[in-house]
Amino acid sequence: MADWGKCLDFGVSIARQARTVGWNAQKVVSLKTSPADLVTETDQGVENLLISAIKEKYPTHKFIGEESVAAGASPVLTDSPTWIIDPIDGTTNFVHRFPFVAISIAFAVNKQTEFGIVYSCMEDKLYRAQRGKGAFCNDIPLRTSGLEDITKALVVTEIGTERDDLSLSTLTSNIYRLLKIPIHGIRAVGTAAVDMCLVASAGADAYYHVGMHCWDIAASALIVSEAGGVVHDISGGKFDLMSRRVIAASSRTVARGIAQVVEAFPCERDDGFIIQGKKCILPTRNR
Amino acid sequence: MADWGKCLDFGVSIARQARTVGWNAQKVVSLKTSPADLVTETDQGVENLLISAIKEKYPTHKFIGEESVAAGASPVLTDSPTWIIDPIDGTTNFVHRFPFVAISIAFAVNKQTEFGIVYSCMEDKLYRAQRGKGAFCNDIPLRTSGLEDITKALVVTEIGTERDDLSLSTLTSNIYRLLKIPIHGIRAVGTAAVDMCLVASAGADAYYHVGMHCWDIAASALIVSEAGGVVHDISGGKFDLMSRRVIAASSRTVARGIAQVVEAFPCERDDGFIIQGKKCILPTRNR
Repeated sequence: MADWGKCLDFGVSIARQARTVGWNAQKVVSLKTSPADLVTETDQGVENLLISAIKEKYPTHKFIGEESVAAGASPVLTDSPTWIIDPIDGTTNFVHRFPFVAISIAFAVNKQTEFGIVYSCMEDKLYRAQRGKGAFCNDIPLRTSGLEDITKALVVTEIGTERDDLSLSTLTSNIYRLLKIPIHGIRAVGTAAVDMCLVASAGADAYYHVGMHCWDIAASALIVSEAGGVVHDISGGKFDLMSRRVIAASSRTVARGIAQVVEAFPCERDDGFIIQGKKCILPTRNR
Repeated sequence: MADWGKCLDFGVSIARQARTVGWNAQKVVSLKTSPADLVTETDQGVENLLISAIKEKYPTHKFIGEESVAAGASPVLTDSPTWIIDPIDGTTNFVHRFPFVAISIAFAVNKQTEFGIVYSCMEDKLYRAQRGKGAFCNDIPLRTSGLEDITKALVVTEIGTERDDLSLSTLTSNIYRLLKIPIHGIRAVGTAAVDMCLVASAGADAYYHVGMHCWDIAASALIVSEAGGVVHDISGGKFDLMSRRVIAASSRTVARGIAQVVEAFPCERDDGFIIQGKKCILPTRNR
């Protein structure tokens, strides 16, 4: 098994450097898929900086980056060493100066995440995990809460950027059913990457979401797993990084309890594949 | 006009001292009004410490404290100088180590809040305001965002502790209608005091809630006002500290936009008064 530790160290150093790019500049905000899906020049600037630095050091590596995909790049994950990058997870927070914004960098080989880095910039917390080697926040080892009793769970989720009736009614009825279990509460800090790191560090017991993207959670999914948590599909089945559906939890029991009450609204996969029976197929138009 | 600046300074010093009481101890959790309404020995310990210190310095002053009221003390606000205390706003966060917990201390004379202190302990942020003298966070002056366009608003709210059908359906349908305006997003960090300080410091543009208590928001309501924001009833009318209903916002326009779409579920006032026509009356059983 290759040790990707040096790539991880390099990823950590460029995540920290990226913190200095345009964070205090005037923010020019544009819209992407909805009136709530924002992007700024800083998102694009940070992604360009990260990809340029990696390309110089590892010229054969591939990339899936939020802003590159928005600009037309392919989001299909191959077996090649691939960096999956969200330059600013929590762009709406960034625009509003709400105090949670993260740079998320994952690295996958043979479609398996080898390491993940989440730098929560405003908190100055650097979360990282390497497959089989544990998860850390600012070098302190992380463990999930291990909670088994869902009625005592604190759950994080996000509103997302969808504003259509079906997405919003599913989202709010999920909240209703979860609270009726009952659970202790629901929180939303505006970044999926940080939400999942809160699960990894036992600040919350579970996170669920439909509609986020692979670059939001590729790194933090490994951080949760390496901290002793579980990462599942929203149905309770196997997690699929490209499916835009996730439950991350302190225990299988809590994940199952959430899967039993939450429902998913339809959303297109990140890689453009469609599910036909038990097969996942890339339609001709996306090839 | 009396200057209560010395009382404010004293309040700040005891809020900082209280941070050292039992915060890292094993938490013995009890329930109050619902399976989600938690209390710990630390809540009670911090409140006792604060009240003892104030009583020694200001023996004639009165108190409304969350845990004292839970233990049977009267929550009726009189004209006497009164300290309104929440020893831990965000007890559920505290139990789960979710990173927002605040000590909230307000001081009212003739039923008017003269100063407010919110110490967000885990962030080490000390918010304070004195009537007519501005609002500050760690001595830096605060201004709300001033946002007027609700479609660009980031809104904070809370789930609260109610788990009955009417409260939860009102709560979730409020979220649905707000998102349909559309707005940029909704966040929930688990403490009303910090939520409102986020509005005061322009990290969010509005906060609304039904069901919180006077001790949760007495201090932060003044902090929002002194930072240039508005504080209204959930209907858009005049704010009533004891009504358990609030909208705090960057502007009247944003407050009005929220008031137009959110509804309140019934909840008993903090002071036990009931509304009869235009009068607010204390029933005999509560006298």
